[in-house]
This record gives sequence, C-alpha cells and structure tokens, in this order.
Amino acid sequence: MALIVQKYGGTSVGSPERIAAVAEKVMGYRQRGDDVVVVVSAMSGETDRLIKLAKAICTNPDPRELDVLLATGEQATIALLCMAMNDRGCPARSYTGQQVQILTDSAFNKARIQDIEGARVRKDLSEGKVVVVAGFQGVDELGNITTLGRGGSDTTAVALAAALKADECQIYTDVDGVYTTDPRVVPNARRLDRITFEEMLEMASQGSKVLQIRSVEFAGKYNVPLRVLHSFQEGAGTLITYEDESMENPLISGIAFNRDEAKITVLGVPDQPGVAARVLGPVADANIEVDMIVQNISPAGDTTDFTFTVHRNDYDKAMSIIQAVAKDLGAREVSGDNKIVKISLVGVGMRSHAGIASTMFKALANEGINIRMISTSEIKVSVVVDEKYLELGVRALHDVFQLDKAS
Amino acid sequence: MALIVQKYGGTSVGSPERIAAVAEKVMGYRQRGDDVVVVVSAMSGETDRLIKLAKAICTNPDPRELDVLLATGEQATIALLCMAMNDRGCPARSYTGQQVQILTDSAFNKARIQDIEGARVRKDLSEGKVVVVAGFQGVDELGNITTLGRGGSDTTAVALAAALKADECQIYTDVDGVYTTDPRVVPNARRLDRITFEEMLEMASQGSKVLQIRSVEFAGKYNVPLRVLHSFQEGAGTLITYEDESMENPLISGIAFNRDEAKITVLGVPDQPGVAARVLGPVADANIEVDMIVQNISPAGDTTDFTFTVHRNDYDKAMSIIQAVAKDLGAREVSGDNKIVKISLVGVGMRSHAGIASTMFKALANEGINIRMISTSEIKVSVVVDEKYLELGVRALHDVFQLDKAS
Repeated sequence: MALIVQKYGGTSVGSPERIAAVAEKVMGYRQRGDDVVVVVSAMSGETDRLIKLAKAICTNPDPRELDVLLATGEQATIALLCMAMNDRGCPARSYTGQQVQILTDSAFNKARIQDIEGARVRKDLSEGKVVVVAGFQGVDELGNITTLGRGGSDTTAVALAAALKADECQIYTDVDGVYTTDPRVVPNARRLDRITFEEMLEMASQGSKVLQIRSVEFAGKYNVPLRVLHSFQEGAGTLITYEDESMENPLISGIAFNRDEAKITVLGVPDQPGVAARVLGPVADANIEVDMIVQNISPAGDTTDFTFTVHRNDYDKAMSIIQAVAKDLGAREVSGDNKIVKISLVGVGMRSHAGIASTMFKALANEGINIRMISTSEIKVSVVVDEKYLELGVRALHDVFQLDKAS
Repeated sequence: MALIVQKYGGTSVGSPERIAAVAEKVMGYRQRGDDVVVVVSAMSGETDRLIKLAKAICTNPDPRELDVLLATGEQATIALLCMAMNDRGCPARSYTGQQVQILTDSAFNKARIQDIEGARVRKDLSEGKVVVVAGFQGVDELGNITTLGRGGSDTTAVALAAALKADECQIYTDVDGVYTTDPRVVPNARRLDRITFEEMLEMASQGSKVLQIRSVEFAGKYNVPLRVLHSFQEGAGTLITYEDESMENPLISGIAFNRDEAKITVLGVPDQPGVAARVLGPVADANIEVDMIVQNISPAGDTTDFTFTVHRNDYDKAMSIIQAVAKDLGAREVSGDNKIVKISLVGVGMRSHAGIASTMFKALANEGINIRMISTSEIKVSVVVDEKYLELGVRALHDVFQLDKAS
C-alpha cells in the first residue's frame, strides 16, 4: 500500500465528463489499496475567464484581490471532483489551500510555499477517504489568500508529497511522458522511462514545457519521486528521480530547444574590471531576464566583446538600453539578431564522457549549420543557431546520438 | 460619522459595470466620513451556473462539497468589488466568510450563524479601509465552508451589523423600498418611510418578497435598524425599526397577499382531545408546511370541522394524506380547493383600534367577494378568498384604508 499524490491539470478536469473520468481513475488506485491525495487545477478556461472579469473592472487589479478571485477556480474543481467520488460511493473530502493549510509568504500572485500542515489530510487518509486539495493556492500567516502563479499546481502537488512523505508524486498531463525531444519536430522522438532531476531541470528551463521548473526543483530538493503520465491513456509515463548509481546512464537524455531567443552583441568594450556588470546591470534593472552570456577577448587587444541572449519579446527594449550603455562605455559597435534559436543537449552522462560537444558541432557542420554562440554546463551543451535551422539541427542531433533507441 | 453595513444583491453586482457603480456608491458614503462594511452576493446567474455544474456531475451533490462550490460565487464578487475601489484610490479589503470569521453550525446548505469575530474588520475600518465581506457563507468550528441557503446574504449583513454595533444596515435591492402593497396590483401603492420589525415580518411571511424573513427576525432580535433602498436610484427607502412611542402609528401599514395557497377541509371529525394533532401530525411528518389553521365546532354537535391551508404545490400530497387520516378518524367528509389566495392587512396600529376587521369585511362584501376563511393575530387580519378576487380585493382594501395617503 503506497501513499500517492496525483495532480490533474486544467485540461484533465475541463468538463463534468472529464472530472468523472478523473474520479474513476483515482478510485482505481484507491481500490488497489493505495492512499491517494489529489491536487487539481481550475477547469481549463476558468482562470482566463476570471482574469477577463478582473480586466473588465480595471487594468491593474490589486494583487491581493486578484488572488482572492483566482483561488475560486480551483475551489470549484475540488468540490466537483469530491461530488463525483462521493456519488460513486468513494468517500472524498476537499480542502482549499487555506484549509489544508498551505502556508506561503505574502507575495501575492507569485507566493512561495513555506510550510504545509498535513494533520487533517493524514487523519482523512487514515479514515479511508480520498483527499482533494486545491492546487496553486495557499494562505499567508495573516490569513490572506495567496496564489503561486500559473503552473503552481505542480508545485502544490510536490510540496504536499514532500510534507506527507508520499511514495510518489504523479503529474497527469496531456502527454504520456518526457520525450527525448519534441515529437512534433522529431517524429521518432522516444519517451524516456526515467530521467534525473538535474536533466529534467535543464530540459524544462531549455524550453520543454512538460513540467514547471519550480516543481522539479522542489521534488529534487525533497527527493520526491515524480512521475509524468497521460491523464486518459494507460502507460507508465516517465519517472523523474535521482541518478541511480547501479545503472549506466545514457550519454544524452534529450534535446531541448527554445524558439523565442534574440541575441545582442557589444563589440570593442574597454576591458576593465566591472565592465560586465556595467553592461548587463541596466538590462537586469529593467527586469529583462538574460539567458546565455558569452564574453571573449576582442582580437583587437585591450577591448572585449560581449554577447548575450534575451527573450525575443524583450529584444527591442534591451537593444535601446544597450545602445545607451555602449555609448557611455565607449564601445565600438552594437549589433543584434532576433531570428535565432537555442538548441541544447542534456544528459548526466556527459560528465564522464568526453567528445560530446565535438560530435555535436560536427553533426551541425555536416548539415551546413553555422553555430553563432556556444555555452556549456556540466550536463548540458547549448548552441545558438539561425532560426531557420532549428528543425534540421534538432533532427541531426537526435540521429547522431541515436536518441530513438533506448540505451 | 456613522458605521454602516450595506448589502448588495446579485443583480446589483451582476456585471463589471454594475460592480463599478456599486464601488462609486460605497465611496460616496466613505467620502462623507462614514465607515462602511459591504456585504455582497454572487453575481446574478453565477449561483445557477454553479448548481448546473454540480448537477452535471451528479443528481444529489454531497452537501459539504456543494457549499465549497457555491461559496466561490461570493468570493469572486468581493474580489472584483475591492479591485474596483482600490483602482479608484479607495483602500478596500475583502474577506470570505471563513476569513472574517462568520462561525456557523455545520448544517451544510442551510447553516445558521452562531458568532461573528469582528476584530479584523474593526482594525481595517480604523485604518480607513472599506471592508467587503462575502455574504451567504461561513465556516463551522471544524473549518468546513458552509452556506446559509439562498437569500442568506441579507442575514450576513444584519448579523455583521449586530456584531459591529453598526448604526444602520442598508439592504440595496431592485425596489426603492417597502410598499403598502405590490404596485403591480395597486398602481397607487405608496412607499412607506418606515415600518416596524413586526409588521415587516408579517409582510414578508405573507408574501412580500423584499427581504428574507430570517434577516428581519435577526435585525429585530438585535435591534439593528434596517433600511431597504434601491441600488441605482436615489431615495431614502424604507426604514425598518422598532415602534417609536413618540409617533402615532398608522392603523394599517400594508396589505400582503399570497397567490400560491390551497385549502383543505375535514368535516365532522369526532371532537376529542388530541384530534388536531392526529389530523395535522401526518401532514407535518411529510414535511408539508401548514399556514392558517381554523377549527370550529360543527353545527351537528359532538363533531368538529378543520380547515387549513398549504402551499399549492403541496396540495395533492396533503390531500391524499388527509383522506387516509379522515378515514381512520371516522370523519364525515374531506373537501379542498386549490384556487384560493390569502389577503392580509398588517399594522401595529390595530392593537389599539377596534373595528379594523369589520371595515375589512364590509369592504370585501361591497365588492361581492365571499370570505372563505379568517385568521387574526395581534397586528394582522388575514382572509382567504377565491383566486379570481385577488386584485379586486387588494385594491378595495387599499382604497378603504386610504393607504395611498401618508397618515
């Protein structure tokens, strides 16, 4: 008998019929003898409907009140799901974030979980009930309703699993697991049976949208085995866990990519201590997130060249900031390109195997793809290439590392 | 500077535009220096939408979960109204029933308020904030969300006004006050400046739909001056308060009527102690509410005749119960009529003035209206007449007591 926390997203509970299907899925686990805690999101479309209502009232809704409004979305779902289970003879009991309680800080709209009081949930489980908890929401120490920001339901599920010391946290989605890369780009992409937390973090932050980064971090921190599964199809999904010493890890687990990149280059900046901060400080001050940063000695000698990437939406803003900065610093030239993409190879096996990067660069060269930037970490190699080469590059890498075959 | 509790119903907050209008109305009071606590219902249509969702899940939703679901309706409204005020520079803060806390018993779907903790509300008021509270909902001592049943928002407002010792509780509706009778029946019906709690109770229970009976009882019990006003029209409305010794009360304050009545008569029941209970007990056991009850010695001698009225929807059910009972008791005959209505004169002035009833009977006789039943209380005379005479009877009585003129 295991204790399982299951999370169902908005699409999985998007209609009364789907809520009924989820009820029966949960009851299947219950009947096998597992204790089940279910975390649900708002029904798909509901959060957008509520935001639209708020925007009809004013353009900048008060953050505290926005959370009071948005929290109703998940509250409706927990009630409906419990009704469906109770109606089928399976005792179930709903809890809002406030009722659990899921204690957060007071950062409305993007609160962080600080503590979870699991006593009521444990009591219900011991009485044979299924417990259904509203995802995405909590309460601060003053009793104000807070939300964790979009996608926060994954984090709720992982945090609950950690607090209850659950055996597994299952995230039900509209895909049947984590793939070696996006199957829409590479038709023979392969579902991974397992992947490490570190790899999953790189995959997620590199543009694979299956799981929220925060929930993966949280799961890694508290060592909660995480499983991604399809809501309405059978299958074992992908287990995200710690590296297992007993098995040989594959060189490369997957290929992530990000289409929405833009890069900005400042050439011929006088090479003095603190110059990186002087270039990038104003960009950060404008709340623009910088992803890759590359600095090189300029061939000219006593100057240096910077290149960094930002989200394509921030390109124009970042460009005008950098042009002003470059003038102040006496830089020679500023150039930019917002038609680039990033492709990343991810794998814990890289640590112990040389030659991954050179195989990657050769494969891209064979396809005539020019690499514009390179950045590496312990378990990742990222390259920036022209937008038009995205699909070609990803497919070439998937082939050369034979990711369609289980290693 | 007064402390005012204002309640706005679903129609008054039925759209973003109306919520904005309510925000400005509240701010008007605030700017005049009053402290304001606002109680709101769910946006019109929202509760029905939620019930429809629940019914799509199952025919008999779990009562606890139904309350979790329904409570989201008012929660959305409090957030939207606070957004509208904050956006206009008026600090406002929302509270759910759970947050206030409005402590109720655990009778889901029809909970009763037991206590209100007003500390947080008072603190906000002392800081110059408008406080917006979700009507219709509370929390039991175990932390479960409860609802008070439909129309419970009026009760929330009155209970809050009592707990906070407010100077006045204002109920904003789609009518501009309490009228001498329904203006759709009597075009020259007059808005009353004031009416006593007792009269209002009789008016409400006799079919005048302006206020929920429970909220009037509550207001009377805790002596909270209650005012009925129109949400979007100017005007002083009607003040419901205790009888003011200093002023002469009018003989008659108003005429209530009820279209949905039916009557059942049992003739020739052996006149023994306990016979009333034996006739009416089975009706009560079937959860049928009995309104008027009249018992007379039968002209025959040692038997008695009973007549009582029920809601027209319960007529068939009550009739079949009574036919069985009558057989058991050896009653001579059972008859019934579901085409009757009740008309009631209401006024605290009746206490000290004789002749009201006879003036009433004479006025009805002058119109050729046959009275089928009579029942009186200290401040009320009710008659049952054939359905077809309703409008004629109400108009005749409104005329004869000159209710169109302020007394």
